[in-house]
Amino acid sequence: MQRNIRLILEYDGTDFKGWQVQPDQRTVQGELEACLHRLFGTPIRTIAAGRTDTGVHALGQVANFITVNPLNVEHIQNALNSMLPADSAVRHAHEVPLRFHARRDARRREYVYRIEYGRRAIGRQYALCIRSRLDLEAMQDAAARLLGHHDFTSFCVAASERENLECHLFESTWQQSEDGVHFRIAANRFLRTMVRSIVGTLIQVGRGGRSADDVTKILEARDRRCAGPSAPPHGLFLKRVTYEDLPGG
Amino acid sequence: MQRNIRLILEYDGTDFKGWQVQPDQRTVQGELEACLHRLFGTPIRTIAAGRTDTGVHALGQVANFITVNPLNVEHIQNALNSMLPADSAVRHAHEVPLRFHARRDARRREYVYRIEYGRRAIGRQYALCIRSRLDLEAMQDAAARLLGHHDFTSFCVAASERENLECHLFESTWQQSEDGVHFRIAANRFLRTMVRSIVGTLIQVGRGGRSADDVTKILEARDRRCAGPSAPPHGLFLKRVTYEDLPGG
Repeated sequence: MQRNIRLILEYDGTDFKGWQVQPDQRTVQGELEACLHRLFGTPIRTIAAGRTDTGVHALGQVANFITVNPLNVEHIQNALNSMLPADSAVRHAHEVPLRFHARRDARRREYVYRIEYGRRAIGRQYALCIRSRLDLEAMQDAAARLLGHHDFTSFCVAASERENLECHLFESTWQQSEDGVHFRIAANRFLRTMVRSIVGTLIQVGRGGRSADDVTKILEARDRRCAGPSAPPHGLFLKRVTYEDLPGG
Repeated sequence: MQRNIRLILEYDGTDFKGWQVQPDQRTVQGELEACLHRLFGTPIRTIAAGRTDTGVHALGQVANFITVNPLNVEHIQNALNSMLPADSAVRHAHEVPLRFHARRDARRREYVYRIEYGRRAIGRQYALCIRSRLDLEAMQDAAARLLGHHDFTSFCVAASERENLECHLFESTWQQSEDGVHFRIAANRFLRTMVRSIVGTLIQVGRGGRSADDVTKILEARDRRCAGPSAPPHGLFLKRVTYEDLPGG
């Protein structure tokens, strides 16, 4: 009998070429599918909620796969954790209805971008370290301009012409953290490099190089040459994905 | 004119053979003194508050050195941060009275040991990950037995016979954290591997293998064969060192 298994995955993106399987590259999907193949003795294809780019981390990536193996989910989780490399881990494993599809059924994806002030040694892999403080109020004003339903062409790198570039932003908020600031962004979907393009642009606002009104104009221009540079990947985390019927990770 | 410069240092102990200079080993003191030599054009000897072991991290190590160079402290900090490897950083630099000695004058040293539950990928370099939950109440009871002035022979590895093994513990507390537990310990001084021996023993208590009364007996035995194994170094952080006249890091 076919079963559908949903995994919640954590990974340190530092040494991965992103999520998606690529020939001769170390990817999270590649490592996971190699372990599943060993565990079940047959090739298994996984589907993930979001294809994170090279260097991007995940605290709550969601993936699912179909198997006919009756092994219970706790054993699947423990077996995978004993086989996976140290920079990836299965946080939870659940059996879900056969119709569940980790990418198609995701309703809300939440990312966090971490910025720390000053030179750091501890956790430098997990935050963008910048020397001077940012104008949080200006960044917060600019971030709020992105809320709601918009065409995000200006914040998307390398989209195809015909692609639907509309997204609905549920959250776009900066918060003071212990030693810096964190950006929390949630949407129904994200385009390629969208979060990092937004963060890069909002950092320009925080440094006084652009205004919140500029961000509104960039959005309306629908021209990717208008946005700021992409912020580096190592500050970015896929935090949580939520589904209509299922609790988030 | 001679000046005494005090540095507050952060480092990721993962790839260091501890603080202290050793021939043909990568140590924090070795890297720092090489940078100071380059910066000032003359060999500089540094003194640290605590000689952290291989793999132990620091958020607030304190070190000082004497120089006749008039370079202001902000420039010293920026120059060192541009030269030091990414896994070490100068968080602050101050000029202090010539009599200040980072090791001799330290009044209170504070360490934190981090334990996380389950298999983790993010931050696995900065916590001991263990699968099953610990009995926090029992560990807390046992930890409190160590407070005050005692001979810590039982928790000291490789001490010489004549050494003074008395320490005064100001704090010895377990706290629930988001995904695990943290142990905070502060004393006037610590012996070699003392924190890790204490943590290893308290973990045995948390797993039900020993009681809080056993910890009292271990302390009174003054015999290092009585304590539990040392907990691994990667969960341990030198958090802060405080001085009578100067604020902590």
